[in-house]
Amino acid sequence: MPSFSERLEAAIKAKKTPVLVGLDPRYDLLPDEFKSIGCSCCNGTQHETGDYVNPEKVATAFGQFCYRIIDIVAPLVPAVKPQMAFFEQYGSMGMFALENVIQYARRKGLLVILDGKRNDIGSTAEAYADGLLGANSSVWGGDALTVSPYLGDDSIEPFAQVARERDAGIFVLVKTSNKGGAMLQDLVVDGKPVYHHVAGYVESRNASDFAPNGYGSIGAVVGATWPEQLAELRHSMPHTWFLVPGYGSQGGSAHDVAGAFDANGLGALVNNSRGIIFAHKTGPFADKFDRWEDAVLAATEDMIARLAADTPAGNLRLR
Amino acid sequence: MPSFSERLEAAIKAKKTPVLVGLDPRYDLLPDEFKSIGCSCCNGTQHETGDYVNPEKVATAFGQFCYRIIDIVAPLVPAVKPQMAFFEQYGSMGMFALENVIQYARRKGLLVILDGKRNDIGSTAEAYADGLLGANSSVWGGDALTVSPYLGDDSIEPFAQVARERDAGIFVLVKTSNKGGAMLQDLVVDGKPVYHHVAGYVESRNASDFAPNGYGSIGAVVGATWPEQLAELRHSMPHTWFLVPGYGSQGGSAHDVAGAFDANGLGALVNNSRGIIFAHKTGPFADKFDRWEDAVLAATEDMIARLAADTPAGNLRLR
Repeated sequence: MPSFSERLEAAIKAKKTPVLVGLDPRYDLLPDEFKSIGCSCCNGTQHETGDYVNPEKVATAFGQFCYRIIDIVAPLVPAVKPQMAFFEQYGSMGMFALENVIQYARRKGLLVILDGKRNDIGSTAEAYADGLLGANSSVWGGDALTVSPYLGDDSIEPFAQVARERDAGIFVLVKTSNKGGAMLQDLVVDGKPVYHHVAGYVESRNASDFAPNGYGSIGAVVGATWPEQLAELRHSMPHTWFLVPGYGSQGGSAHDVAGAFDANGLGALVNNSRGIIFAHKTGPFADKFDRWEDAVLAATEDMIARLAADTPAGNLRLR
Repeated sequence: MPSFSERLEAAIKAKKTPVLVGLDPRYDLLPDEFKSIGCSCCNGTQHETGDYVNPEKVATAFGQFCYRIIDIVAPLVPAVKPQMAFFEQYGSMGMFALENVIQYARRKGLLVILDGKRNDIGSTAEAYADGLLGANSSVWGGDALTVSPYLGDDSIEPFAQVARERDAGIFVLVKTSNKGGAMLQDLVVDGKPVYHHVAGYVESRNASDFAPNGYGSIGAVVGATWPEQLAELRHSMPHTWFLVPGYGSQGGSAHDVAGAFDANGLGALVNNSRGIIFAHKTGPFADKFDRWEDAVLAATEDMIARLAADTPAGNLRLR
């Protein structure tokens, strides 16, 4: 199998867009048809939150909802990013739904980036890496996984090694999209913020091991909410793919993420979760369509168009 | 329900020891009787690793093995710490086994500290906290959860808030037991290593909200492999419970963890995973007993005795 970096490049070029759709199911935002699956007490008519519903039924609803989202976006985007927290919230049945969603997405030709922000000391990190990384060679079947760096290099190494062996990838948290990220990430050490130190580690791994496209398979998470830092990191991390969260509902615009790309429109995936999957309830397409699926489609096409217009990702269409 | 801090105090005083048993099941180290549950190809006779076995069968073996461990240690120790990675490694069936292990441990009167090192931005952190925290009020039913701090204060806050509402606790990674932890944790900012900055944040939360025992419910993970830092942090974090990994197979001794306790023998839980649950295969009790359970019992009693002899935890016996 080609490396993750090569497969990501191929998927982005095939769809001519770097849009990554985040699968973050929340019970209170599901279209009504899925709420009746989720609740046994009132058929979804009496309550808005998941507090009182059967976890197994919510998990089933999450699975079926995500299948429909995947049906809509699979022809348009290269990859999806299931957020593991929202499945884990509903216990092992939630995780069972996640397994099914991963398989469904892969069958539809999408790359699957698991957003778990996992990490632990070496021998335990191996267990996460073994279970989660490897499209055809792991229990979960992820093409890539997000990894938290607080435990340091010997905790990231097992993920990097398994990723290499199985042609998978990881995305290490560098500069996250939330304000509170500054608490640790922006502390200044030797004249550079902590996130630069993490960035340096990640880039150094890729600088000695990258695909013909120039990028390695050890990516970085860099938030869309910090446009200057994004452009600066693009410059200092020329061999590193970026996963960029924070577009849309978190405030990042297409202009804000323009600096994440190289001149060819490669080098970054830009994630949108709620702004796409819950477009029928939130954002500019809310309540504009009879069918909720049409809002999801419109939001996906809108994001693709905006990135094409306002970032180097537009150059993907020239090929 | 009393707060997590009060329940932890009561459990430690009832068992007169701060020993925490880590549930880190690994297929290759399971006693033979569980390997025959785990594999369908050769009844456990032909291979030593879990690579070729059915994940569902491994998950079943993990559950049954952990039940037996719990039967042995429940009369002796206050709490267990399932490592989520080893269950997640085997997919949703592994997570199902974990759910059952949590319930079994709680029925046997043990506190359950989930070791997941979870974290994410605020709204997603809420989903983890909602699912994992709360002995009687969450899907997973954890009394406490380990949390990674790289995403900063607004990512820890949702865990702290749910913990408070549900009388649960969290343990924030401060100074981890592995060598690589130094990469970020020991970077010096304003004359203090990064882990001191995290420590200061955690302690400040507890200093304004602690139980009559003097400790709050926002704990800290501090490795046994750094005895000086442990004692120094005990001094600077007087209202914070410590979860201390690294005893035994990672090299920490009873002497090394002595500084984690206050004069009454409270203030810390000391974890041992492999050294107890795989005592029949590794460490001083390996191959010393006919029954593997007797090695587990001997290792547990040995650790209890060593902590009583060489640390202030011995004072728990004076009551």
